Amino acid sequence: MTKTIDITELCLRDAHQSLLATRMALEDMVPACADIDQAGYWSVECWGGATFDACIRFLNEDPWERLRTFRALLPNSRLQMLLRGQNLLGYRHYEDGVVDRFVDKAAENGMDVFRVFDALNDIRNIRHSVLAVRRNGKHAQGTICYTVSPLHTTETFVEMAERLVELGCDSICLKDMAALLKPQAAYDIVKGIKTRCGEGVRVHVHTHATTGVTLVSLMKAIEAGADGVDTAISSLSLGPGHNPTESLVAMLDGTGYQTQLNKDCLHRIKDHFAAVRPRYQAFMSNIYGVETDIFDSQIPGGMISNMESQLKQQNAGDRINEVFIEVPRVREDAGFPPLVTPSSQIVGTQAVFNVLMGRYKVMSSEFADLMLGFYGKTPGERDPDVLAMAAAQAHKPAIEVRPADLLQPEWESLQTAASTLSGANGSEEDVLTYAMFPQVAAAFFEKRAQGPLKLGREPKAIDPAAAPGSAPTSIQAPVTYDVKLNGRSHRVSVTPIAP
Amino acid sequence: MTKTIDITELCLRDAHQSLLATRMALEDMVPACADIDQAGYWSVECWGGATFDACIRFLNEDPWERLRTFRALLPNSRLQMLLRGQNLLGYRHYEDGVVDRFVDKAAENGMDVFRVFDALNDIRNIRHSVLAVRRNGKHAQGTICYTVSPLHTTETFVEMAERLVELGCDSICLKDMAALLKPQAAYDIVKGIKTRCGEGVRVHVHTHATTGVTLVSLMKAIEAGADGVDTAISSLSLGPGHNPTESLVAMLDGTGYQTQLNKDCLHRIKDHFAAVRPRYQAFMSNIYGVETDIFDSQIPGGMISNMESQLKQQNAGDRINEVFIEVPRVREDAGFPPLVTPSSQIVGTQAVFNVLMGRYKVMSSEFADLMLGFYGKTPGERDPDVLAMAAAQAHKPAIEVRPADLLQPEWESLQTAASTLSGANGSEEDVLTYAMFPQVAAAFFEKRAQGPLKLGREPKAIDPAAAPGSAPTSIQAPVTYDVKLNGRSHRVSVTPIAP
Repeated sequence: MTKTIDITELCLRDAHQSLLATRMALEDMVPACADIDQAGYWSVECWGGATFDACIRFLNEDPWERLRTFRALLPNSRLQMLLRGQNLLGYRHYEDGVVDRFVDKAAENGMDVFRVFDALNDIRNIRHSVLAVRRNGKHAQGTICYTVSPLHTTETFVEMAERLVELGCDSICLKDMAALLKPQAAYDIVKGIKTRCGEGVRVHVHTHATTGVTLVSLMKAIEAGADGVDTAISSLSLGPGHNPTESLVAMLDGTGYQTQLNKDCLHRIKDHFAAVRPRYQAFMSNIYGVETDIFDSQIPGGMISNMESQLKQQNAGDRINEVFIEVPRVREDAGFPPLVTPSSQIVGTQAVFNVLMGRYKVMSSEFADLMLGFYGKTPGERDPDVLAMAAAQAHKPAIEVRPADLLQPEWESLQTAASTLSGANGSEEDVLTYAMFPQVAAAFFEKRAQGPLKLGREPKAIDPAAAPGSAPTSIQAPVTYDVKLNGRSHRVSVTPIAP
Repeated sequence: MTKTIDITELCLRDAHQSLLATRMALEDMVPACADIDQAGYWSVECWGGATFDACIRFLNEDPWERLRTFRALLPNSRLQMLLRGQNLLGYRHYEDGVVDRFVDKAAENGMDVFRVFDALNDIRNIRHSVLAVRRNGKHAQGTICYTVSPLHTTETFVEMAERLVELGCDSICLKDMAALLKPQAAYDIVKGIKTRCGEGVRVHVHTHATTGVTLVSLMKAIEAGADGVDTAISSLSLGPGHNPTESLVAMLDGTGYQTQLNKDCLHRIKDHFAAVRPRYQAFMSNIYGVETDIFDSQIPGGMISNMESQLKQQNAGDRINEVFIEVPRVREDAGFPPLVTPSSQIVGTQAVFNVLMGRYKVMSSEFADLMLGFYGKTPGERDPDVLAMAAAQAHKPAIEVRPADLLQPEWESLQTAASTLSGANGSEEDVLTYAMFPQVAAAFFEKRAQGPLKLGREPKAIDPAAAPGSAPTSIQAPVTYDVKLNGRSHRVSVTPIAP
């Protein structure tokens, strides 16, 4: 008996978020949708994460319209989104009424599978979203953020899975956003979940490719009983992105596992994004190949570049190694939060402050809030001295309750505020857009009628190898590019010289 | 009990051969040698393959001097080379006396492990080299070229391993030069060899990374009992190269297998080659990421670009798909040779001829020789009609004997010819260099005294992220590069424009 492994395709969301700074225009995704819809994926991740923010901030595109477009173009597919629990797609905690309306509207506009996570793995921040998804009759996937610390064992992850199942989640996702999940850990956790919660509990595994080892981890997760894994079509894969869909298919040949993906469809999807990707050169991550230092530092790549930039602004670029030593200490003081947005930035910035100005001489208000429980409960005990300093600076005591429990109903005030904005159309979707990103939404509503921007740029150089028939075998005239290097634009001209 | 997996590091040979067209100067490898020597590798591949040719053709460097340098700088390491059996490092068959002298001299200059292969897996072409290695008291690693065809089963590979063991090989290498080895096949073949030949028979597995799946194959090979695997330090890995050493180390954490590699050494080796690699931008392979089409076409990437270029020269660039269909037919007619140098070029060129001019209307002399047995015995039966055409064109009958059996002793004539060359130093090493590449050697001897060329070029753009302290944040003046694009050189100038 060959077991079918379900595949979630990431090319419409996390792949371009990880590789192209979430800048891909809807117009560049539309031509691939017919093949994506026919390829045989279990689900197609296409919304949520940073795409909502990027749509209104960079692309002048209505994210709700994007969702409706995918719904229309992918009639046979489960649409999937990533939802930050009580933060929804924004960066603060929302009151439960807003959470309800957001989930209702996402479901109404076509979303099928909601992958719900919390950066601290605080299940109280996940609960209300999951209940809202269930109430809508949609698929609620409860998510465990994988991290490495002295407190995080197979047992702690399995326990969290058990609580997510009790909450009524339709499936469990083990989410490895930093590519730290090694093969044996993947095996042990998935096996543990299946043993504890029952073979019938669906387990999906999400990994990034950064460290080069996680395709093996997916193999081991599958051997342990995982039902589904996430991949991205090869032309939008690897580096800080994900493992290639086609490699996963090949990996399973003859193993007793198989996917039900159509290779011809995959080939056309690959070719499409291979043509699209170079247009976004200016936004490409500068990580390529693999980076295994993350295993030792446990500091994700994006966090390192943030900290380096902060140090340089203070003319202290040479002190990065001190910061590397400080990060684990700050993380321990805070009770070992997973390092993922926003906790990675909060911990990293505080480590930089500590190195430059002395330990906790200056505390960011975000770090104080993290210590005081305003992001939720961190996995371990927080350092009592640092906690006292945080309370003194923030002029408020630590809280034990779920952060959203302190919030008053806010829907009506959001609705009122949104209704005054020029260009707002009075829909509940617009109110939600405003709720997520008040300033950005206001600017977006104002310009919305101008229609979406397309930030991709055709590479101007002609690749003769790609041209059919008898192509010219060299560039015939000077060609000029605008290239971005270290954040500044340069004009590059290429002129043929004698061969 | 944790089993130690032996690692062969490829950074000094196959890694830069696959990624940088074998152009890396010895000078760019020397600074890494102390760490490579201390890292705990089972062996360090550093010679053979295309490096000998590249040394004299492109780098004006004596390959024997390179070997002696590695011997001196890697006193604690097993040095390893790749040897094309009866072809040695050249492109024709050599008489046994030349094979003996080559192996003697390589051993005398410091080589420890000889990985010996034949492109057709004809063991008769491997035998004499293996015996010469054994006579020198060195490690003879008999090699199986992995390929996919209706004739190649687990059983055929296991049988070949059995015959290599009978020949006296100290270990067996399963060599996957085209990244076609999927996990289950890796498991089955290694398991089969261990079962048939005994657990005590050492098995090493060599894979390339091109298809994105072979790190999983290494995991499965290890689970089946493989004793050693090949990897390349991460900064010289992936694409058409190999799996990253550091990822392999991480992969084994907690699995019951381990390497004995020193992470600090690996880190320094990585940093060294991360700094060196950009200097060879002009020679970099244009394959990046993964390419899984190879699984369907079984046509290696290098072979496709060759065929495309041949078609374009005939203004028939649009007929590549016909060639893709013709390649497997030609391969079948020839008895399913593995597609590896030189058989890949021979089969590919004939397929192009067949498409352009009709099937076998024109036959290359190399293809006729392949059909007639002058490269050795192909795995399967050859098509009798095509065989007859080959004999008619070449005016010679097919042979059944080992090709080298037809050769007369040639050492003395090679010695005489080499001695007349300007700049030759009278050493047996020089005679061997001449024997491998007569024309190129003559030109090299002439210019040898000028010393090695260094083809690497410092990237002239300053990366402020790499500079310590407060670095300038932009390029200050126009910078000019010479870049190679589709085989022609172009001058590129980069001038800052307003940000």
